[in-house]
Order: sequence, then C-alpha cells, then structure tokens
Amino acid sequence: MSHDYERPVTPSSGLRLHLNENTAGCSPAVLEALRSLTCTQAAFYPDYSQAIAACARHLGVAEENLLLTNGLDEGILAISVAAFRRSPETAPFEAIVVAPAFDMYAASADAAGGHVVEVRQPGDFSFPLLKVLSRINDRTRLVFLTSPNNPTGIVIPQSTILTVADAAPQAMVFLDEAYADFSGTSLIGDPETQARPNIVIGRTFAKAYGLAALRMGALVGAPETLLPIRRVVPPYSVNVAAAAALPVALADKDHLESYLRETSESKQMLYEALDRLEVPYWRSEANFVLARFGDRAQRVVAGLQAKGIYVRDRSSDPSCAGCVRITAGVASHTRECIAAIEEVL
Amino acid sequence: MSHDYERPVTPSSGLRLHLNENTAGCSPAVLEALRSLTCTQAAFYPDYSQAIAACARHLGVAEENLLLTNGLDEGILAISVAAFRRSPETAPFEAIVVAPAFDMYAASADAAGGHVVEVRQPGDFSFPLLKVLSRINDRTRLVFLTSPNNPTGIVIPQSTILTVADAAPQAMVFLDEAYADFSGTSLIGDPETQARPNIVIGRTFAKAYGLAALRMGALVGAPETLLPIRRVVPPYSVNVAAAAALPVALADKDHLESYLRETSESKQMLYEALDRLEVPYWRSEANFVLARFGDRAQRVVAGLQAKGIYVRDRSSDPSCAGCVRITAGVASHTRECIAAIEEVL
Repeated sequence: MSHDYERPVTPSSGLRLHLNENTAGCSPAVLEALRSLTCTQAAFYPDYSQAIAACARHLGVAEENLLLTNGLDEGILAISVAAFRRSPETAPFEAIVVAPAFDMYAASADAAGGHVVEVRQPGDFSFPLLKVLSRINDRTRLVFLTSPNNPTGIVIPQSTILTVADAAPQAMVFLDEAYADFSGTSLIGDPETQARPNIVIGRTFAKAYGLAALRMGALVGAPETLLPIRRVVPPYSVNVAAAAALPVALADKDHLESYLRETSESKQMLYEALDRLEVPYWRSEANFVLARFGDRAQRVVAGLQAKGIYVRDRSSDPSCAGCVRITAGVASHTRECIAAIEEVL
Repeated sequence: MSHDYERPVTPSSGLRLHLNENTAGCSPAVLEALRSLTCTQAAFYPDYSQAIAACARHLGVAEENLLLTNGLDEGILAISVAAFRRSPETAPFEAIVVAPAFDMYAASADAAGGHVVEVRQPGDFSFPLLKVLSRINDRTRLVFLTSPNNPTGIVIPQSTILTVADAAPQAMVFLDEAYADFSGTSLIGDPETQARPNIVIGRTFAKAYGLAALRMGALVGAPETLLPIRRVVPPYSVNVAAAAALPVALADKDHLESYLRETSESKQMLYEALDRLEVPYWRSEANFVLARFGDRAQRVVAGLQAKGIYVRDRSSDPSCAGCVRITAGVASHTRECIAAIEEVL
C-alpha cells in the first residue's frame, strides 16, 4: 500500500471546487501586508512575535500552548516524526487513521516510520468508535481524528474524542480542526479536553481565512506534549509573508463572516439541488459537501471538468464509492456548479 | 546533550551581522512579484512548475534531480527523517556531524531518531578526514558536510567528499552548499559526484539571493535517492511568495553580482583590519569571516551590541574558543563594523 500524496490537478483557469480552497480569496488587508514588505524584510529571518501573539489571542490560548507551523501539513508531519521516533522495524509503532481521511495522515505517518492502521468508517459515515477502540494497543502512538471530517463534513461528538484519548494514554490524539471555523465549534479551551494532555488540536488558516498559498497552520496542546513536536519543526519554517498576513487576516472579521455566510448559502443551495436530483449527500459542517452520485459520479466529474469546473472524485476512498466532494464557498460559484451538474445529469 | 536550536536574538533595529543574511536585501524584482499576487493566488495551493523549471535551469540539472524545499532547513529535516526512519532504540542509526557545524544538522538528526556522532575539526579547521572515516560504521546513515563550511568559510576538497561518500555507501552524504554562490564552486554537475548516488547536495536562496524570510531551498541528487526524501516533504510546503520570487531573483543577475562584489570587498576589508589588529582569522569562501579574538571575544561582541551591531559569538562551539563570526556583505556595513571593533579594542 502506497501512502504517497499526489498533488491534484491544479488548473490555471476554471473554477477550482476540488481542494476546499477559499475561492473568495484572502482579505485585501493581507495583500496590503504583502505589499508593505521590504527588500531587507525578505532577506532577514522572520520575527514571529506578532503572529504568535495574534494567533494565541484569536484562539484564546497561552503562547506556550501554541505552535505555528508552515501550513497544517507541517504540523501533521512534525507530530508524526515525534510519535514515530525510533519506531521498531519489527512491530513498528502504529497510527490509527479513520478512513476516508486527509491523505497526509497516512503519508506522514508512513514517512516517519509508523505503521498505518486504517479503520473504515461505515457507509453512513457515523464514527466507528468501537472499531477504533479495538485497534488501540500498546504500539499505538498516534490517532488521527478530523472534526468536522474531510470529506464528509460531519462533526465527531466530543464524548467520542475524549473516549479515544482516554483509551490511548500512551498515544497522541491529533484532532484536526481544519474546518472548525465553518462549524463554529472547537475543543480548544474546553476543560475536558485540556484535562487530557495527549490531545493535540490542529488548525489551519488555509480554508476560512484563505491563506492556503501562504502556508500557516497551528498546533494547540499542553506545553509538555508540544515540546517533542517543537523539536521537529525548524525554527524559521513559517515564512515572512504568512507571518505578516496572519494578524491582519484574523483582524478582518467582516471578510471572514462574509465568506462564512456564502458558505452557508452555498451548502443550502447544494442540498436543495441534490434533493431535487435525488442524489444522496451528507449535511456538512465544513466548506464542502460530499454527494453520492453512484454510477453517475465519473460522468459528473468529467462533465464538469469539460465545462472548466473542478470537483473531487472520491470514489476510490474507503466507503466513498460513487462519491464526489464539492467545495461550497462563494454562492455564485456554487450556482454555476449546480447548473452544470443539472446539465450533465 | 541537547541538540535544540535556539533562535538567536533578532533585533528590530541595528546592524544584523550575526546570521549571514544578505543585508543588501533581495532583488527589487522580488518585491514586484510579491506585489502582483492576488487574493485568490494567496488562497489557492501554489503551482510550482515555473519555480521548479527556473531552478533546474539555474542549477543545470534535470527536474527529476531537484526537490524544492521550504528553506534548506526543511531539506535537512527531510533527509534526516528519511535516513533515520525506524532507527532502533538500542544501537540507533548514526549521523556524523563535523563540528563546529550548522546547529540544524544535530537538531534534525536527533529529532528524527538518529544518534549524533560529533567529529571535531582541529584548531586550524582542516577537514578531519581520518577521524570521519574512523567513525563510519554499519549504523551510519547520514554524514553532514558543509562546503564552504559554516562558521569557517573553508571549502572541503572534492577528493575528501568523494572519499567520505565511498566509505559510507549505506549512508546519505549531505553536502550543504548553502554558501556556494560565494565560493563560485559547486559539485552540482560534477561527473565524479554524480557517479556517487549517495551524495545529496543542498542549496539555499536565503544567502546570496536574499530570500531568507521567504524560505526557499533545494536538494539535488539522483532520483532514487531523492525519492524517500520527497515522501517526507509535504506537497505544498513551499509558499507562493517564495515560488513567485525564485524565478525573478534568479533572473536578476546584476543584483547578485553586485552583492557578490560587496562581499568580496567586505572580506578584504575585514582581513586587512584583522591583520592590523593582529587578530587571527580564516580566509573565507562565504559571506562571513570567523576571527579568533581570544579572551577579547566577549568584549567585542558586547561592545558591538552596545553600538547596535550584532555579530555571532561562536566561543562555545567546538574548536571555536574566542571566535566571533562576522557577516561580510554590504561594504558600508562592514566599514561600520570595523570602525566599531577598533573602538572597542
């Protein structure tokens, strides 16, 4: 089994609804921040004090509970490297991945020397708690959870997350909250979560804040849990453009709220269209919707692509036969996508 | 022994001659490239085709021999993770570091599960080839070499590098050429080097090209050697600002040549001043000079800092008692630094 991540096609034109990107773009204040950079600021190793302070304030955590990373991908890699340091060749340490899941979990765990244990979600994508618990053993070093989930958009109940954390005290439980800005719920600051220092929460500013290309993510956890992860992350891994962008992006609340409103409207439109077309889907707490087009899936993906609209075929993912993931962001983009789906079907 | 890297003091004003940064700054064309970025370019995962093509052309290698990284630090981390995957807890795989060396070698190797074997350079900083060869064994997985060396600026003879590579066929030999733009010599493209696929060469655009804050590095090697390293590096680790900057930075040859001229002039001025002051130093093929101020080192560092000039005290590094590393870039900055040294002594 290969765990390599393959970059999806990145079209230079057309409508990109396949990567859950913010197709409204970042706040204009971010561009202003980039335009104010000088030749020496580009040449000097960055100072992160303002970005760290702004992010800690935004998330409501102390700076010692926060680690900024070069996109959340670097956080996922770093937690994997920390978890699988000196993983034995025989009976290696294990990572539990609840599939379908973001490809980078298995790719990073495998690259770092972990053995990937895949637990499949059932066809209704309810969380397979008993199956996860049954796969935890003394070699388990990392459990990847995603809430809201990607590609389903379903939130994992808090009690489920705490149960997993309690069942695997020797492991780090990585709770990926990349899409939490859309659900409006987070376990950051939750006392029950804080009482379990083996939980590390991941956030990204790629999605709701539209900073995917600048690369900015964050890990939140107990200082002693973050320590071995900090040792992995190079001291200057976050670039100056991202460091300059983060505080102004966080401050532009109107821009965020506007995109969140568009996302809600887009999801509602997609639900209504899919109901009309009798295509099953899952109600999503994120900025995308997973729909099961069944044996029409490839026709939809290819038909949309012919019209310059890119959506993500997830058919080859576990439990995802016939499923297509559609980014639900800017309402006009969603309208265009829905019209195209209706034409294709 | 802790291998943590500590970020040096990053003053917001004053003269930064302690991090080997390009104090002339990046090419103005880089700022133009940053200013042309749009809100959606910031929000979409970057396309690297132009940056990869420009870098491959610049280095004279095929794209399959090239891996762009988020600064060379990420390259060092990734090669360490690849080398020390499933390093045993008892008798772990080993990294040989020829000290004094860039702190990130030991930090990354240790974070990835390697055992760091330090081979000390002698007091004259000639390369300790026999000592390195004597420490190679069947657990050796990575050898870090730096040419020109940091902090001495001394180039390692090509025959020495090839001898090390031949003596450790089961290991990757990482040849860090971060400062090769200043020496004008590189083993990239050298047939003898290409005949040894266990050599991976690292380059950075942080120094001569002044892109330290944007983060752009590169690994060059045989495709099969790069493969396990590519598996470690996340697919979008290079940010869009760096990707946009690299081609225009490489194209602005006047800017590079101007900085290289200033560097040469600065080194010459430093040599003359140090001769005058009877302070021993090493002739450097990089953009810094290591000088042995002896028991006056701390006085020099503190005295310069009081004047707002930052240089790097390397006294605590192996074989570096009383040594101070001074970045030698912009001639006017060097003149200011020399005048301050003369005042302090």
